[in-house]
Amino acid sequence: MNVYAFLQTVRERKPLVHHITNWVTIFQCAQVVKSFGASPVMAHAPEEADAMTSLGSALVLNIGTLTSDLVESMKLSARAANRKRIPVVLDVCGAGATAFRDQKCFEILEVTQIDVIKGNSSEIARLAGLAVKTQGVDAGTVTADLREIAAGLSARRNCTVVITGAEDTVVGDGKTFLVRNGHPMMATLVGTGCMAASVIGTFVGAVPDQIPEAAAAGLACYEVAPELAVKKSEGPGTFAQHLFDCIATLDEKQVRAMEQVSLP
Amino acid sequence: MNVYAFLQTVRERKPLVHHITNWVTIFQCAQVVKSFGASPVMAHAPEEADAMTSLGSALVLNIGTLTSDLVESMKLSARAANRKRIPVVLDVCGAGATAFRDQKCFEILEVTQIDVIKGNSSEIARLAGLAVKTQGVDAGTVTADLREIAAGLSARRNCTVVITGAEDTVVGDGKTFLVRNGHPMMATLVGTGCMAASVIGTFVGAVPDQIPEAAAAGLACYEVAPELAVKKSEGPGTFAQHLFDCIATLDEKQVRAMEQVSLP
Amino acid sequence: MNVYAFLQTVRERKPLVHHITNWVTIFQCAQVVKSFGASPVMAHAPEEADAMTSLGSALVLNIGTLTSDLVESMKLSARAANRKRIPVVLDVCGAGATAFRDQKCFEILEVTQIDVIKGNSSEIARLAGLAVKTQGVDAGTVTADLREIAAGLSARRNCTVVITGAEDTVVGDGKTFLVRNGHPMMATLVGTGCMAASVIGTFVGAVPDQIPEAAAAGLACYEVAPELAVKKSEGPGTFAQHLFDCIATLDEKQVRAMEQVSLP
Repeated sequence: MNVYAFLQTVRERKPLVHHITNWVTIFQCAQVVKSFGASPVMAHAPEEADAMTSLGSALVLNIGTLTSDLVESMKLSARAANRKRIPVVLDVCGAGATAFRDQKCFEILEVTQIDVIKGNSSEIARLAGLAVKTQGVDAGTVTADLREIAAGLSARRNCTVVITGAEDTVVGDGKTFLVRNGHPMMATLVGTGCMAASVIGTFVGAVPDQIPEAAAAGLACYEVAPELAVKKSEGPGTFAQHLFDCIATLDEKQVRAMEQVSLP
Repeated sequence: MNVYAFLQTVRERKPLVHHITNWVTIFQCAQVVKSFGASPVMAHAPEEADAMTSLGSALVLNIGTLTSDLVESMKLSARAANRKRIPVVLDVCGAGATAFRDQKCFEILEVTQIDVIKGNSSEIARLAGLAVKTQGVDAGTVTADLREIAAGLSARRNCTVVITGAEDTVVGDGKTFLVRNGHPMMATLVGTGCMAASVIGTFVGAVPDQIPEAAAAGLACYEVAPELAVKKSEGPGTFAQHLFDCIATLDEKQVRAMEQVSLP
Repeated sequence: MNVYAFLQTVRERKPLVHHITNWVTIFQCAQVVKSFGASPVMAHAPEEADAMTSLGSALVLNIGTLTSDLVESMKLSARAANRKRIPVVLDVCGAGATAFRDQKCFEILEVTQIDVIKGNSSEIARLAGLAVKTQGVDAGTVTADLREIAAGLSARRNCTVVITGAEDTVVGDGKTFLVRNGHPMMATLVGTGCMAASVIGTFVGAVPDQIPEAAAAGLACYEVAPELAVKKSEGPGTFAQHLFDCIATLDEKQVRAMEQVSLP
């Protein structure tokens, strides 16, 4: 897989990525999209859901600070995206922490077609029906096989499933990709998971006919940057800034030398 | 025009700038006001709109993540500001992207007196009645003359109009100012447009009897800082931090040597 | 008092700290908790208030950008915390600025048991019944004795009271602690007050049976970091990042040499 070619396409097409996301990391989500050379827009009023989503090349939904009203806007935007064949990414942030989050995720999945479901191990395991617990927005313990969970959920929901972690698992269209990039420093910075969903939205917005490949390539590019950024950083604060710098300046040589995307 | 004198007045008077703004760049808007030595406050409950606005020296409204409820709070705060003769800045973020945004901008302009309307070229052109399209929150193509658009809207709405871009156009009280400061790195950082509106609010709050001059001076100071910051930066992440540092430490020598405010 | 022992306990127990906070500094509040090695979660839907709070080790409420609905969620979460004996911190951000804020603070204090009330001098003085005025979210003038105000409010509300400033006053369980750490650069960065409340939540979440001691130790650790960070910083932007780095890397030697917690 030519990971760098996906990055080039993102930079050339500059997809507009509409987000309905959480209030904690909304700036970081916008900035990561912009750092990749694409264009973020955040809007959640139900009155403009259809119009704003229709302008975009991808839709990213993130339930991190969900309310019932916000989820209704997400459904309106996702339905507009479905009609226009715009890919939709759902970050199931905090699924498995409360019954309310699980219920709202299932509601979205019932009434819309999601193209990429993204979460950490316990979030995705919960959506796949396992009785696991998420610790707030941090992954809880999952003993089952993650690739099997992802494959089962992908088949059931007819979508690509992304499980993030030290090794990311991407399953879609009957294919599986593993992404082994990233750095433990990411766990010390709030929003690295949310940004991953925004990056996936950016890449599938640029290459909508190869969703699992674009998701894996996006994750690899996004996670090569921390490996570079950490060398310039003394902790989570300076890391956060160098991460955006390294994304914006990521070049062919770095991507080709460092990307760790593989088939299992 | 003595740009530095306006900066001195901001730092001496430390205006309190009340914002009802968007959730993406709300921190950046507050931090830019604080970096100029002034005092930001963000509050949007309708029950305290009147009381909070009345405490302040300026009101900044930004529709970036508008909802119908939020716009009602904006109207309440703008009416309170009008009664107390506190200047009001409206950032028409995303006008021209959806009909809902256009309609809400026109509603605000009908029921309140706005002192400064600020936007990029396609946002302002849309408010002036042209059939242009904004790409999310990024400027679309405008072929008409920007100074004429600004002058027409300024006359019709009896206010100062600011069009931001590589060259900023400020029209008010029958005068036109051009500001040619800034750096292309600003386009790689989310929130540089929103911060411009907050800076205008800060400067017109400090010098409310010279609104177009204060707006132009504020933009010049705000845009000199990126020219300094970019020399210390390797990308949008480090740039964001050096920008705040350079604003906070901006001195007379820098402003006098670098400001590019001119009459057309 | 062994300040460092409290920091060690935070890092070992990694408390989950549930926040219902403001939209300006919500990222900074989460990041400061994470930088101390603990785990933040932000959630405000009333439907999950009980479930999310019950997962946590502490609850932090901050009324910075309050609405009536948000305060109802705060009450639901605080009641859940009371039932489970999870400590609750209330940052009375902007009390004394508008009657609406005062009223909502008193409502929360009437229907729930708050364990730590935290604010600046005029915010706390207003809650103690004095006719003072807060300038937006910046402290107004208070001529009365702060220790007496804190002691009176602590006795009346049966809780710990924290007044932040150049010298922080912590009164609870009949004891008073003064914390003299910190740096004037903190006043140039938006959110340093909000982060203090999140830090208090983190420390009382880790050591819930010594609330005033944990609050004082948390403030001391949080305020040693700026003294270190400022040496690497050129202004509020770079300071913000070095602050998180210095918190994450704070070690025993630094804490023991620099902490300034004392009895009056």
